[in-house]
Amino acid sequence: MTDGPDGAVRVDLAGRGYEVRIGQGLLERAGQALADALGERRLVVVSDAALRGTSHVARLARGLAGADADWIDVPSGEASKSFAGYGELLDEMLALRPDRSTVVVAFGGGVVGDLAGFAAASLLRGVPLVQLPTTLLAQVDSAVGGKTGINSQHGKNLVGAFHQPSLVLADLDCLSSLPDRELRAGYAEVVKYGLLGDSAFFGWLEVHGLALLAGDVEARRHAVTVAVRAKARIVEADEHERADRRALLNLGHTFAHAYETLTGYGDRLLHGEAVALGLVQAFGLSSRLGFCPEDDVRRVVTHLRVMGLPTDPREVGHFAADDVIQAMQGDKKVEGGRPAFVLVHAIGRAFVSRDVPPEILRDHLRHAA
Amino acid sequence: MTDGPDGAVRVDLAGRGYEVRIGQGLLERAGQALADALGERRLVVVSDAALRGTSHVARLARGLAGADADWIDVPSGEASKSFAGYGELLDEMLALRPDRSTVVVAFGGGVVGDLAGFAAASLLRGVPLVQLPTTLLAQVDSAVGGKTGINSQHGKNLVGAFHQPSLVLADLDCLSSLPDRELRAGYAEVVKYGLLGDSAFFGWLEVHGLALLAGDVEARRHAVTVAVRAKARIVEADEHERADRRALLNLGHTFAHAYETLTGYGDRLLHGEAVALGLVQAFGLSSRLGFCPEDDVRRVVTHLRVMGLPTDPREVGHFAADDVIQAMQGDKKVEGGRPAFVLVHAIGRAFVSRDVPPEILRDHLRHAA
Repeated sequence: MTDGPDGAVRVDLAGRGYEVRIGQGLLERAGQALADALGERRLVVVSDAALRGTSHVARLARGLAGADADWIDVPSGEASKSFAGYGELLDEMLALRPDRSTVVVAFGGGVVGDLAGFAAASLLRGVPLVQLPTTLLAQVDSAVGGKTGINSQHGKNLVGAFHQPSLVLADLDCLSSLPDRELRAGYAEVVKYGLLGDSAFFGWLEVHGLALLAGDVEARRHAVTVAVRAKARIVEADEHERADRRALLNLGHTFAHAYETLTGYGDRLLHGEAVALGLVQAFGLSSRLGFCPEDDVRRVVTHLRVMGLPTDPREVGHFAADDVIQAMQGDKKVEGGRPAFVLVHAIGRAFVSRDVPPEILRDHLRHAA
Repeated sequence: MTDGPDGAVRVDLAGRGYEVRIGQGLLERAGQALADALGERRLVVVSDAALRGTSHVARLARGLAGADADWIDVPSGEASKSFAGYGELLDEMLALRPDRSTVVVAFGGGVVGDLAGFAAASLLRGVPLVQLPTTLLAQVDSAVGGKTGINSQHGKNLVGAFHQPSLVLADLDCLSSLPDRELRAGYAEVVKYGLLGDSAFFGWLEVHGLALLAGDVEARRHAVTVAVRAKARIVEADEHERADRRALLNLGHTFAHAYETLTGYGDRLLHGEAVALGLVQAFGLSSRLGFCPEDDVRRVVTHLRVMGLPTDPREVGHFAADDVIQAMQGDKKVEGGRPAFVLVHAIGRAFVSRDVPPEILRDHLRHAA
């Protein structure tokens, strides 16, 4: 990872490096940025239906004026990330008669980025992808790093591809119209970066988190930049999650996916909210196993509460420990039947463990739920 | 490409090289071969339903005795290579709770190899793949080189991935029970290798082709080995079809895909039969454009006829020139609206052209159809 000009973070991957630009007014200048990165190309914009009628669509349309661009709208709910949604999107794309130089532009939140990203990975066996993430969650997490995919009845993101984008434009102006609940949910992924490897950043978030939520652009710029830099560094070290390095990004996620599975991936529990629950669980379990001081658990819980995020599964519903454990088994990172947990020695010091004793996990979940 | 021991051709790709073994009795020893190449792994065998009840299934079951293997049957018709078929296969795979070390074993013809290959490419964002091709077409073409994919209503193989196998076992014994028509159809792809880059091989086929069809194992071994070697060399030079080198493998295929589109990819015209028609068209068009001697066209037509393959679209039906041209536009290799044609200077000397004048193409198709 090297830093480019103008609030850009570069993801260095042999032969496939790319820039993540973070700033304001990027959509209005998207056409030029795309042409600089890829040359003049035909574009297929996969646009989040939730953005319809917003100023962001108008800004991007202005930014792409003169470009050869078709637009396809996709609903932003998890239901779009299905085999059916995938097939429909590809049929719509193919109806436009793309060729291998056509660029897919994913314009929206995590669902649209994951779905359009997998479509780009598999359209004509792979065409270039540009990510224009419009939610905090997508800007700090899903739009960077090349993970794309869809869900199956057996779990989330179980089908997909590693397909790195050629360019990411994280336009901070998009965050201004984000519903409060979605902004908070995305914030949980920001906190994750502090908790997994950067205690100073967590300290900064404790001070500036509320300003960030309230709309402070400089706070948002700093937080998104730090998060993207952290992710870039990890992706560079372990692009395909073959070692444990990239797995650190799943801090809280083994629990989160289980809660999402049990609540049906719907409005009842947003992904980021599930991550907040999962972060608390990961810290609590680490403490129970003697890895992490109780004080750090309390600090995490306090900060998430202050930020208006759920910290206790009982705020969402009743989850039996056995159901949570059962739902965890569907996770991709399970090898040989034992889930890999990302645990912590302290705030900012995460590690991967495959040795969590099942009875301690069960006991922990019983007390937590 | 380097040759390994025991009738093996090695495909050399940086970090992802693999062996294509060609011989008899390979299925009976598949377990050992897989363990040697990949270590002891959990296997998901995606098996061609057309093989059900044959000795080949029994041989493979014997070869995998003791291995941790689940079997999933898939119908071998093109209908399986659909979004629906893909979703169903992945759901069946995911129900088995695979992890990223699980190996997908594609056991069957081209349809099963392409579908299971794409499933392996996208299952948990990619798991290893072993190809056990059972048809001549799959052994000389689709099982080697990493192209996987499914069809859409807009055309064939328009969705998929480049996903190289970790091992290919081309068991010549499987060819003995192949229906005669399928064997002939696969033979068209064998001829293609002679026509695109190896006139001596084409000469050998003129002498030994009938023996090959009649069951001569040494002739089959030689032809499959030469074809796989030729393909390995091309794939090594241009894995992702970014230059024109790999495109040479599409000799005859731009026409073939058009005829298949117009006949609905069914029993009326098998892929290899469409390739035979396409090879004749490519030579005819090359001759009309002054690139290739008439004598070579006649030699190609004669050999394909002797081998019982169609050489004239009118043997199959009536195809209006404009319909064929329209169907060609859906091809992946079309860039900027103009199909890339693989043309020939002579038998064994193919090249890529994007400059075929549309009126000459139309005129050629009018006379040919």
